[in-house]
Amino acid sequence: MNKSAKNILVIGDGGWGTALAITLCKAGHHVTVWGPFHDYICEIQSKHENLLYLPGVKLPPKLAWTSDAADACRNAEMVVAAVPTRFYRTVLKSFRPELPANIPILSVAKGFDPETRHRMSEVLAELGFSSAAVLSGPSHAEEVAREVPTAVTVAALDPDIAKVFQGIFPQQFLRIYTSTDIRGVELGGALKNVIAIAVGVSDGLGFGDNTRAALITRGLVEVTRLGIALGAASETFAGLSGLGDLIVTCTSRHSRNRAVGERLGKGESMKSITDSMKQVAEGVCNCSLAAALAREHNVPVPITDEVEAVIHRGKSPRDAVQSLLMRDPKSERQ
Amino acid sequence: MNKSAKNILVIGDGGWGTALAITLCKAGHHVTVWGPFHDYICEIQSKHENLLYLPGVKLPPKLAWTSDAADACRNAEMVVAAVPTRFYRTVLKSFRPELPANIPILSVAKGFDPETRHRMSEVLAELGFSSAAVLSGPSHAEEVAREVPTAVTVAALDPDIAKVFQGIFPQQFLRIYTSTDIRGVELGGALKNVIAIAVGVSDGLGFGDNTRAALITRGLVEVTRLGIALGAASETFAGLSGLGDLIVTCTSRHSRNRAVGERLGKGESMKSITDSMKQVAEGVCNCSLAAALAREHNVPVPITDEVEAVIHRGKSPRDAVQSLLMRDPKSERQ
Repeated sequence: MNKSAKNILVIGDGGWGTALAITLCKAGHHVTVWGPFHDYICEIQSKHENLLYLPGVKLPPKLAWTSDAADACRNAEMVVAAVPTRFYRTVLKSFRPELPANIPILSVAKGFDPETRHRMSEVLAELGFSSAAVLSGPSHAEEVAREVPTAVTVAALDPDIAKVFQGIFPQQFLRIYTSTDIRGVELGGALKNVIAIAVGVSDGLGFGDNTRAALITRGLVEVTRLGIALGAASETFAGLSGLGDLIVTCTSRHSRNRAVGERLGKGESMKSITDSMKQVAEGVCNCSLAAALAREHNVPVPITDEVEAVIHRGKSPRDAVQSLLMRDPKSERQ
Repeated sequence: MNKSAKNILVIGDGGWGTALAITLCKAGHHVTVWGPFHDYICEIQSKHENLLYLPGVKLPPKLAWTSDAADACRNAEMVVAAVPTRFYRTVLKSFRPELPANIPILSVAKGFDPETRHRMSEVLAELGFSSAAVLSGPSHAEEVAREVPTAVTVAALDPDIAKVFQGIFPQQFLRIYTSTDIRGVELGGALKNVIAIAVGVSDGLGFGDNTRAALITRGLVEVTRLGIALGAASETFAGLSGLGDLIVTCTSRHSRNRAVGERLGKGESMKSITDSMKQVAEGVCNCSLAAALAREHNVPVPITDEVEAVIHRGKSPRDAVQSLLMRDPKSERQ
């Protein structure tokens, strides 16, 4: 484990960026968090709390905050990129001139770039960052901030970059496993949300633990199948960033995607759900993208297809479950 | 799907045998359930309810009940063996002379024979039954009885035997997938209970969703590793009888194994827990067996080792979690 203190810049003042900044601070590093809004950064500094995105967690006094990008980059030896996928490309592009091209950069956002449908590590490469890694896995930010034991995967094409990031976190409550399958780790994080909607639908219809476990299991089968067709390694989907994250997303009451499914299952219309949400759940858009990718690669994804039919083609949730159950009997490997 | 009605004998009047008997009855078959105690069978017949093992579920009038083995076997074309592992060998041995050696027999008990440590399908072969299959997967009996959509795996060395059983259940709420990896399907059902104890310990210590998802994920890694060393196929553990059953056992409040872990995590002694339970949770015995098998085959099973240390060597639950977290940083495939 690398014990020497580093200067680390966290780009993004959301819940996850803040939780990781606190964790790195506890490990003895010099950490600066950048956020886009000067007024909000001042509020965080004066209250020692990130009230909007990580309420109830006291911030370490030595954690530095700024909204000035040039100031944030000064002396930075490593970067954690914790920007939502919608703003990811724009924000990271604005930081690019301030940072060396080969600075180790850890991407912790899950999902696809909405314009290009590229993964976040692809966006980083396109912007000219040459030493990127991604972090993913079952990790509610509030739990990490409370030092609840958590295990996640850090993946990078170059195993040395992954090890650099493995070395900076305090193993006693944030255990890092490494992987070289950056594609699989990112796809797991993006595709799980569609399955979480299906699980929510089942819960909303009043079905049970059996149904939920079957949907998670068969959901993992189709996510894995699609991932392999897209060039990822099968084993990655059995790991923390695949199965692990899927379990948390499908069983947690805090999951926005599961909640959308549950409301659909209870009979609410998609329009009424969308109108009432500040932020659209990622799975709502991702299900069409995933279904299209699957068709393109001739991969059967029955659960994803039914979620898309319910969300975008008005199919009733009960009919969707019936369609899944009435498929021809199969061998489990099909 | 085989639509013709069959004469089916269910050996065992517990919750699971009863739920499957009801389900087969609904599919139009002629079903007889055998139970060992004449008085209790009479009670079931008069009340149309299995009050001890499946309370609250009304039994179909055409479901037949008996405690007479010879009577039960008359005309039987297929058998479902739903006897607890402790009595499995004795009961099935007593039925053997009454049945043809090649009668299709579906074993639905999970675990090892306590004397020989053999799997249930091995016990059936030793008794001279030549056409055995096993059924496993995420399936609370009460939910199956309530027609909650459920998916399970039926495995047999001969795929035709598996298909025979796939054809007799009503697909609209009990979906059957087939497999030829009978060993993997049985091992998944037996080994999951140790991981459920570990998850219970984590819950009892007050840890969170992150910890639970990490334990399930890394638990599946070690169960799979051990299963492969014992001759099972890796993919089976990613299926309904592996992952699916593991998810239900680790997240359900009804799991006896998870409950043992939770009480340990809250500080209760193993002795006090055992004294208060009518039936010992399977994982309590299985953890020593699994740990011994793993040592024999040189397979690292860190979670199983810690569960054994807590249960049989008095290690404190908190120290066990610390030991897991403080292992050397790893690649995810290790």
